[in-house]
Amino acid sequence: MSERIAVPLSKSYLLLNHGPTVLVSSAHGEKRNVMAAAWNMALDFDPPKVAVVIDKSTLTRELVEASGEFVLNVPAREQAALTLAVGSESGRGIDKILKVGAATTAASRVGAPLIDGCLAWLECRVIPEPHIQKAYDLFLGEVLAAWADPAVFSNGRWHFPDDARRSIHYISGGSFFATGDEFTA
Amino acid sequence: MSERIAVPLSKSYLLLNHGPTVLVSSAHGEKRNVMAAAWNMALDFDPPKVAVVIDKSTLTRELVEASGEFVLNVPAREQAALTLAVGSESGRGIDKILKVGAATTAASRVGAPLIDGCLAWLECRVIPEPHIQKAYDLFLGEVLAAWADPAVFSNGRWHFPDDARRSIHYISGGSFFATGDEFTA
Repeated sequence: MSERIAVPLSKSYLLLNHGPTVLVSSAHGEKRNVMAAAWNMALDFDPPKVAVVIDKSTLTRELVEASGEFVLNVPAREQAALTLAVGSESGRGIDKILKVGAATTAASRVGAPLIDGCLAWLECRVIPEPHIQKAYDLFLGEVLAAWADPAVFSNGRWHFPDDARRSIHYISGGSFFATGDEFTA
Repeated sequence: MSERIAVPLSKSYLLLNHGPTVLVSSAHGEKRNVMAAAWNMALDFDPPKVAVVIDKSTLTRELVEASGEFVLNVPAREQAALTLAVGSESGRGIDKILKVGAATTAASRVGAPLIDGCLAWLECRVIPEPHIQKAYDLFLGEVLAAWADPAVFSNGRWHFPDDARRSIHYISGGSFFATGDEFTA
């Protein structure tokens, strides 16, 4: 289990505001899965909402539509290989979470698991918008609970202790940018 | 005028994939405006689409709804003060672009201007989805043309020559993260 503290819902947009790539975890019945998603963003402050693209071809899509729930996990640089692995193969016919060796912790408000070792987690309930789900693979969610590793985010601020615990931004072809220096304009 | 080269439409998602904060420029009739938007993402590869949140209270919202067009400009770290300035005040009753001293260049496919000195530009036509525009302030756009400064992006790859020309990721309270080191998982 990762160490984690609750993030007030009104501050949960800060976990996505800088545009990190996330892992989308899901579960329904006996099945569970995780995939990577560079295409995500905050959508509202309070009550907090998020948007994420989940392709029709994925097992995640099936599980999210069936359960009406998902978790956005914000992975660390030390999880980049894991992020790439879960972004590269389908979860059909296997337990991808098990295959990539990820440990999980039960979420508080949804059935989808929290991926251990991440920097932050947003537990979400799908806001049903069937037209945009079908036409654009676009899913909206209300954030029901949010958590962060207090070593990297507390009191509404990111403070990465070292490069291994920075968030990451997928580019393409297996490459990422690490989140860089903080500065004030 | 900024130096710029065309980015093939099928590669334009790479300009947003790593989650940078953008400037949304718009124009209608005699009015034009620009605002900052951390809440943006790519939505599809080809034909390329984007999603961006544009609050109801903004002049940008009026101009985008009236014209059906916008440009996503990807600003550089050296434009962080500009990004903060255009994100902090309304364009109502003033020409905000003029006030912040930004030079512009005419776009090729839309009436909204390109903000000079940025790293990249995506010219977009709104995909009308009145329900999600009204309910979530969420706008979808098809990318009609894309451009980049060849010193920072060419042949489908980012290659920042120095820290001043890195892209940026808004945090809150006037602070940003610079886009950091590229690495392979």
